Formats: sequence, structure tokens, C-alpha cells
Amino acid sequence: MEQQQFEFFANEKLEDPEIVDPELELMKDRFAKLLLGEDMSGGGKGVNTAVTISNSITNLYATVFGHNHKLEPLPKEKKAMWRREMDCLLSVCDYMVETQSSLQVLQDGTPIEVMMTQTRSDICVNLPALQKLEAMLIEILDNFQDTEFWYEEQGSRSSKSVSSGSFTRIELRKEEKWWVPVPCVPPGGLSEESRKNLRHKRDCANQIHKAAMSINSSILSEMEIPDSYMTTLPKSGRSSLGDSIYKQMYVPENFSPDYLLDCLNITSEHEALELADKVEASMYTWRRKAGLGHSKSSWDLVKDFMSETDNRSDKNTVLAERAESLLFCLKQRFPKLSQTSLDICKIQCNQDMGKAALESYSRILEGLAFNIVSWIEDVFSTDRSINHETTNINKSN
Amino acid sequence: MEQQQFEFFANEKLEDPEIVDPELELMKDRFAKLLLGEDMSGGGKGVNTAVTISNSITNLYATVFGHNHKLEPLPKEKKAMWRREMDCLLSVCDYMVETQSSLQVLQDGTPIEVMMTQTRSDICVNLPALQKLEAMLIEILDNFQDTEFWYEEQGSRSSKSVSSGSFTRIELRKEEKWWVPVPCVPPGGLSEESRKNLRHKRDCANQIHKAAMSINSSILSEMEIPDSYMTTLPKSGRSSLGDSIYKQMYVPENFSPDYLLDCLNITSEHEALELADKVEASMYTWRRKAGLGHSKSSWDLVKDFMSETDNRSDKNTVLAERAESLLFCLKQRFPKLSQTSLDICKIQCNQDMGKAALESYSRILEGLAFNIVSWIEDVFSTDRSINHETTNINKSN
Repeated sequence: MEQQQFEFFANEKLEDPEIVDPELELMKDRFAKLLLGEDMSGGGKGVNTAVTISNSITNLYATVFGHNHKLEPLPKEKKAMWRREMDCLLSVCDYMVETQSSLQVLQDGTPIEVMMTQTRSDICVNLPALQKLEAMLIEILDNFQDTEFWYEEQGSRSSKSVSSGSFTRIELRKEEKWWVPVPCVPPGGLSEESRKNLRHKRDCANQIHKAAMSINSSILSEMEIPDSYMTTLPKSGRSSLGDSIYKQMYVPENFSPDYLLDCLNITSEHEALELADKVEASMYTWRRKAGLGHSKSSWDLVKDFMSETDNRSDKNTVLAERAESLLFCLKQRFPKLSQTSLDICKIQCNQDMGKAALESYSRILEGLAFNIVSWIEDVFSTDRSINHETTNINKSN
Repeated sequence: MEQQQFEFFANEKLEDPEIVDPELELMKDRFAKLLLGEDMSGGGKGVNTAVTISNSITNLYATVFGHNHKLEPLPKEKKAMWRREMDCLLSVCDYMVETQSSLQVLQDGTPIEVMMTQTRSDICVNLPALQKLEAMLIEILDNFQDTEFWYEEQGSRSSKSVSSGSFTRIELRKEEKWWVPVPCVPPGGLSEESRKNLRHKRDCANQIHKAAMSINSSILSEMEIPDSYMTTLPKSGRSSLGDSIYKQMYVPENFSPDYLLDCLNITSEHEALELADKVEASMYTWRRKAGLGHSKSSWDLVKDFMSETDNRSDKNTVLAERAESLLFCLKQRFPKLSQTSLDICKIQCNQDMGKAALESYSRILEGLAFNIVSWIEDVFSTDRSINHETTNINKSN
């Protein structure tokens, strides 16, 4: 009722004498959406700001790089979009500070303790590192200009494939990853110079992949384990892992995770991830039973090492440790393993905006580096098949 | 451990080829702080975004208008700051949408229902109204240039006060509100033209005050009652209100809230607010006992009206209704009453960013309008005392 009298205002808009800056408007738009947190009604029933930042970075990566499956420079407008939006999303990190006490000496020599604010140390260390890694990846893509190889356009495949032999090979690859364009090389294969250059790029992207992965897993390990994960843990680690694996883990003599993995004969990433989830859940179940904390700091490891044998020989402690080493070996065997249920749960429950930005940024760089490596491998694969064919022709002659 | 290898990056900063736009940087700063939600560590342990918006608007008002106690145009740089920062804080409202179904007719005449998004109706109605009210208040202040009255600077009071008579009067006022500068008028008082102009401004500011207050209370009434308020309600409305008030409320014959208020003889705003808090708490206690919902929509009121006498005569329902009318009368007697505990609780628990912006915006405009009215009254008061004095001198002659 009270509102009726003001409705005549509704269609009036105050005249804005300022010229609208498109850059500023875009920024307002992006920040407003971050603030709304995926509840576009403004009701605040969406996700928290940390998750919004994480999802925004993930979505931006999909928008900019999602349709790119070739070794070629990123189109200019996409690069500009990427730069602008990432700057916007990451800018919030510049304002996150931590308080530290610092000793200052007065003019009369009296030392006093003062509290200083400074940018968070995890951001200081990791953000410039990630920005450097990103710049290196973009540079790698930028350098793929005037290359000896090229990509087959859809529908024009047969006309460009050099012979039926290589065609079959490519066809097979295409069935596996039909959405990835097929690289083509000249009839005589790549030049040695070109191969050397590609090998260098691949090794470089591989290093970047490892670096991004290592930052990502270190950020993930620093995220709190959500209560929701702990409450859904199985009551018994044994029932979750299954009797056969459990029996192999609960042996009196020395436990060999590698031997166990050999026996399990895991054939796909999917199987590996399923096992990783189970092992991780069992590990936390046993840790909880043993009365251990959720995560182990390096200090905990020292204490473990120094603690008495009685404690170390506790059944649940032993099982938790064995599960940990099994998980470690599994991840080493499948370095490209997707995130486990715990990782996903951590990302979804995380409230820390700094960790959200670092985790998602490192995750997408890991993905981009991995893709570049595999696209280079695709070119090598085509090149090898051409060489192989030429050798065969030479042999049959 | 894994982080060590990247630390060499930490001191490198990517060169930014773009020229830094100060406007853009300021915007980033403001939005980043909104996103951090008063937890500058980025840990997300601060307040929710709605509360951050509300607090930011309140704080901005204090910064820009807090030191201003005179009828004079707002300094240019403060006005620019106000405009820029409010635009930034309110811009998030432009992105809040609601979904509504709408009937569209296809070319063949088939009607289909489509879902459309549009700006939230409460924002569409109230935000332009508030912006208009704000513009009117700023204009009122802007028009106070080359006025017949002026303000005494601190320490130069005695030299400018025209006579000992008026000096005493001013001195008294200053003791009540020592922080408010004292207005001075020419020896003969204000011109009739000037008085007319001031009266017009006062009436105008008064209307704006009422309008802002009405929007504010309508937004507050639409905010959910927090569970935390309901759980802290007293078990008995009687014990909270005290026996004497309770006995006057629980009379068989017609209850007169005005008579009760007359008896209570409330002398200060403070007493009034204390009573309002108690009455409001008792009202919700009785409503809960009667099994009524927290808030009454207009439809509920219709149902109340149409419901059977049995239900209406339930003791708790009657008491809740009487408490409601008592609260209403109390607020009418003390129109400048501060927010009740429930209002404060609602603002602190509110998650809706749109309501947060509208509530805080209307609240500060209410405050500014109220101040302008009282500053004009101060000028009139000085003017009257001069006139009175002149009349006295004339009489004694």
C-alpha cells in the first residue's frame, strides 16, 4: 500500500551526464555477477563467493579454450577476452591480506612489536608463478605460426590425406577422439628442424603441466576436509574397499602397494578413479578410528616417526598409512587422474576465495598444458605413420 | 615442499602493457572489498554479501555526510565521491532478475507460455524512487548558497552573536547539541522572502523524510524474521511486558492503546524504543502461541477479518492484535524512533542483496532528510529568538 504513491517514479530515470565507459560497464557486469553468486534474483541463495570465483574461472576457460583443439595462436579477440576477464576475476586476490607481527626499533633503541598487513603469502608465492606458467603456455601457442603441419577441415579429410595407409591410421585416431581435428604433415614427413622444435615445445608444456599439477595438489591439500565428507564416510574401511583388497592390505609382513596394484590390473582411468575414491574414503575412516586428525602436517609426520611403536602398530593407524601409500602409488601410475570425490567436495565447500582462485587457475592451466602435450603427440603420431609407410614402401621396392 | 621450486617466480611481475585507468582501478578495489565481505584475508569468514552491501552504504553515508552539519552545498569532491561509490554499490541491483511467465501467441494463433526474465519488481519500483528522493535532497542542499544566515565558526562565537539575549538562547541550544554549528541571522532577523523559502525547503524535506521512511519500513516488513530472533523470544509475553502493562492489555472490554500510552507517560525516545522492543517481542510470542505465521500479508488480514469469532477470540490472538496496535500507536507518537531489535536483527541476517541495498539506501536518505529539517528548524529558532528580543526591546521602549 505504502509503495503505491512512489510508483510514478518508476519510469523516470535520472539522466546520467557521464559518458558510459564500455570497459567500466563490463567490469561492473562481471563483478555484479560474482556478487550475486549464481543466484540472479539477488536473494543470496546461490553459492558462496569462493565457489563463484572457482566456477567463473572454470567457465571462462571453457568459453575461451573449449573450442580450440589445434596448435595455433589463440585468436586475438579471444586472447583479449581471456586477459580482461581473468584480470577481473583474479583482481580480488590483490586485496587479500594477512596480519603479521614485526619487530621495529624506536629511535631510542627500544624494540616494539607492530602488526603489519601484507598480501597473503600463499597468493604472493603461487599467483605470480601461475601467471608465468600461463604466459609460457600462451607463448607456446603463439609460436605455432607457419608450421609445416596443418589440420584437416571437417568433410575434406579424404582429399588431403596423403595415402590410404596413413588414412586408416588417422581414421582410427579420429574414432577415439572424433572432436579433435586431425593433423596432416607433408608427404615426406616433418623436417628434422620442425621435429626438434616440436619436441622442445612438448617437453616445455610437460614441465608446465607438472608445475601446475603440483601447485594444484598443494592448494587442494591445504583446503579443509568438509564435514559433509566426513559424515558420509563408510563405517568400515574394509566393506568399502572389498574383502580381497582389504586382505592384501592387512598382511602382517611388509605391504607392497605396487604389488597390489599389479594384481588389480587396472585398465582404465575410470577404474583407477573409482579405486582412488574408495582408498581415500577408507584412509579417512581408519584415521578417524585411530583418533588421528584429518590431515597430516609435516610436523605430524615427524611426530609419527618419533612416536612409540605401540601407537604405530595400532591396526587402524597401520591401515590408514597403507591406504595413503596405495593412493600415492595409484596417483603416480595415473598422473592424469581426474579429481577424487574428496577433491570435488573440498572445492564445493571451500569458503576461502584465495584458495578458490589458486586452485581453479592451476587446474585450468594443468588442463591446457596437458592438451598442448597431447596435440603435439598427435602431430608426431601422424608424422611417424608417414615415416613408417615410406619405410615400408622403400622395403617393398 | 612442492612450492619451493616456484618461489623464484614470486618476485617477478608480468609487465602490464595497458595503461592503468584510475577509475577502473577504483572500481576493482570497491568490488573486491564487497566480495571479500569484511574478511580481508579472503577466508570468507566475514559477513554475507547482502550485509556487506548494507554496511558499505551505511559507512559511505557516514564518510560523506557525517561531518556535514550545515545547510550548504556538499563540497564538489565529496559529491563526486558519493556519486561514484553509490553507483558502484547500487550497480549490482541492475543485474538482479526475476523470472515471470508470459503468454505469447505464435503466428498460427497458438498461445504459448514463455518464461521471461526481468529486473526485480521491488527494485524497479523503489530504486528510481529513492534516486529521485536523493536528487531532491542534494538539490535542496545545493540551493543553500548566498543565504541570509551563516554559521558561527568555533571560537569566534561571542564576536558574532548580536546581543547577550540571543547569545544565551544559542548557548543553551549548543549545550544540547554541541557538535552542531550554531546558525546566525542578521540583526533584524531573516527577510520574509528568506523565511518563505526556508519553510518551503523544510516542508519539502519533510515529505522526502516521510517517503523514505515509508519505503524503509515497507522493505523491512518484507524481510524474513530470522530464526535467531524467534528462538530468543520470551516464553511469556506477560513477563516480558511486565504485569501492569499486561493487565491493561488483557481487559475484557475494548482496548485503547492510546489510553495505555498516556498512562505510561513516556518521556524519552530511549524509553519509547525499549517499550517498542518489548511490545514487538510479546506480539511474536503471542502469535507463536496462537499458531499464527510470523508475518501478515494483506491476504492474511482478509482471512483474519473473515474468520470465525471463535478463532478471533482466542486469548493469544487477541493479545497479539492488541500488541500490534500498541506498537503502531507508539511508532506514530515517536515517528523518529530508531530501529527496533527485530529490525536490526533482520538487517544483520538478511541474505537478499536487493533488499539490503533498498533498506540501507532508504535508511540513509531518511536520516539526511531528517537532518535537513532539523537544521532548518535551528535557523528558524535563531530567527525567532532575534524577533522575540526585538519585540521585547520595542515593548520596553
